[in-house]
Amino acid sequence: MNRQVILVARPNGVAQAEHFDIIETPHAILMDGQLRVRNSFLSVEPAMRGWIADKGNYSSPVEIGTPMRALAVGEIIESRHSDYQPGDIVTGWFNWQEEAVVDATAIVRRVKETDLPHSLALGVLGINGVTAHLALTGVGEPKPGDTVLVSTAAGAVGSAVGQIANILGCTTIGITGGPDKVAQCTEMFGYAAALDYHNDQLGQAIADACPHGINVYFDNTAGRISDAVYPQLALNARVVVCGTASIPSWDPWPSGPRVERHLLLKRARMQGFVIFDHMDRYEASVGQLADWVRAGELRYVEDVLTGLDACPDALAGLYRGENKGKRVIQLS
Amino acid sequence: MNRQVILVARPNGVAQAEHFDIIETPHAILMDGQLRVRNSFLSVEPAMRGWIADKGNYSSPVEIGTPMRALAVGEIIESRHSDYQPGDIVTGWFNWQEEAVVDATAIVRRVKETDLPHSLALGVLGINGVTAHLALTGVGEPKPGDTVLVSTAAGAVGSAVGQIANILGCTTIGITGGPDKVAQCTEMFGYAAALDYHNDQLGQAIADACPHGINVYFDNTAGRISDAVYPQLALNARVVVCGTASIPSWDPWPSGPRVERHLLLKRARMQGFVIFDHMDRYEASVGQLADWVRAGELRYVEDVLTGLDACPDALAGLYRGENKGKRVIQLS
Repeated sequence: MNRQVILVARPNGVAQAEHFDIIETPHAILMDGQLRVRNSFLSVEPAMRGWIADKGNYSSPVEIGTPMRALAVGEIIESRHSDYQPGDIVTGWFNWQEEAVVDATAIVRRVKETDLPHSLALGVLGINGVTAHLALTGVGEPKPGDTVLVSTAAGAVGSAVGQIANILGCTTIGITGGPDKVAQCTEMFGYAAALDYHNDQLGQAIADACPHGINVYFDNTAGRISDAVYPQLALNARVVVCGTASIPSWDPWPSGPRVERHLLLKRARMQGFVIFDHMDRYEASVGQLADWVRAGELRYVEDVLTGLDACPDALAGLYRGENKGKRVIQLS
Repeated sequence: MNRQVILVARPNGVAQAEHFDIIETPHAILMDGQLRVRNSFLSVEPAMRGWIADKGNYSSPVEIGTPMRALAVGEIIESRHSDYQPGDIVTGWFNWQEEAVVDATAIVRRVKETDLPHSLALGVLGINGVTAHLALTGVGEPKPGDTVLVSTAAGAVGSAVGQIANILGCTTIGITGGPDKVAQCTEMFGYAAALDYHNDQLGQAIADACPHGINVYFDNTAGRISDAVYPQLALNARVVVCGTASIPSWDPWPSGPRVERHLLLKRARMQGFVIFDHMDRYEASVGQLADWVRAGELRYVEDVLTGLDACPDALAGLYRGENKGKRVIQLS
């Protein structure tokens, strides 16, 4: 039997453990062109909240009664597709389950970096790392000497953003939550300074850390952290809108200080980035990221949970901020 | 004696008539390198609110007790600068006064389009037209077939934006206030449709007028009109942040629905534009605009007040929405 984590109810906000069930289903029969993948690692990521929401999103909602949509990495154990052989390591849309029977279109890529841990295909060599790399360079357009501020500085995307900005010659300032993550930012991820967003005087702390203003603000939060950042943008600043993790729900739609005047006074730019628009550059980006990992210039932290039973609460835990690094679930 | 309009008090919000005084001062003596200009038309523009504000702006505040900063057009009547001769028509920072004694650096340009009314140097062939042209093309990046929505559609900048977007092959939709301006938008400025922002169902009206979403939103308002527009941006939309006319004061800073989620879902971009960053392209832009005016493709409406005594209330009147077209003050 195949064990699967099924979405059983649609939450308003972040899905909690009770919105999922674990069920057992018979192994599917393989049809022509299909592959059977035994998942070794499942991904858990903030964007899942959007995939579960029933409207206004950049991908169709996960249907009730189906396995939770997720990226995973695993080994092909049976193939009826001429391009793939048993033993191949692949990453793709294999969902929260032990075993996936999929068409080849579900595969994002074959994992070539088998000298590195396979789980990295879900993190720094996967959607998180590629998002960090392509959003920072494509939208943020950092120049050597720029001050780059990252709002989820210790997270799976943010930690890569900070390090890549460092590699590109920028001064990096991180914002994160709690003393442990603050320390991780400077000690592990090379930020010149890291600020705790619990600080009552966050605006002043940002001003002190960024005396010449902020040239690139890479944001995954869209809440009070951003409100403290916008007034301190430098002339011609670029704001990368990559996520909205600090907003628990968009129904009702939340308000905040208006941004237009900041954008006008600073001739600044805010732009949204969704990785799925840039899949043509995915392979090249992973190659670059892997080179940086091997050279020790791009470090990562994983938060590894064990077993399919960890899935239902794993997303809610992410939004509780309990992980330190990219959260994955190891199956075998 | 030279008559001047002096700023005598700094308002919070829009300057009213009582914030100005008209005084008489002796004619200044010309020094080497200086010019004496007899102003024929003075400009009145929304950005003056920002020039008067005492902080957080893109130019230094007008000092209390000095003539109100303004663009004007006039004739050189005395020159101690070898590049300029009496009789030259010039436009520049000559301020709200009958006669200006300035260095050549105050001149924005020599008016070469003397076949057209000189007042146009303050409107469609001046800062308004050039702003419309360079902000629309540089930030808005309209493509043929795009839907371009303009929020102050009948104004000095907006009316040029709509017509230039038409020339570039876009479908243009205007938002303005009141039935007269709505009619002016479609009859005079070529908008495919025009909406009255007093409409209670503005969001629905925008949706009906823009069935494929909005590719370019050219905004001069930053208030409830924009709040109704953002949810209807098309994928990869561009928002040109050119002014914030609907916000009477930024102290205290106003709130509104957060924009980040729209930018993310639509992979959209918002960017501020200030013409003073683009003066190197001013001359070429005026040349293009003048060609369009002569060809009858770019029409304009002027709102001409007469005499220096009209100055003190002219800016407040602009914010009361009483003008139909570019407001100028004719002196001679």
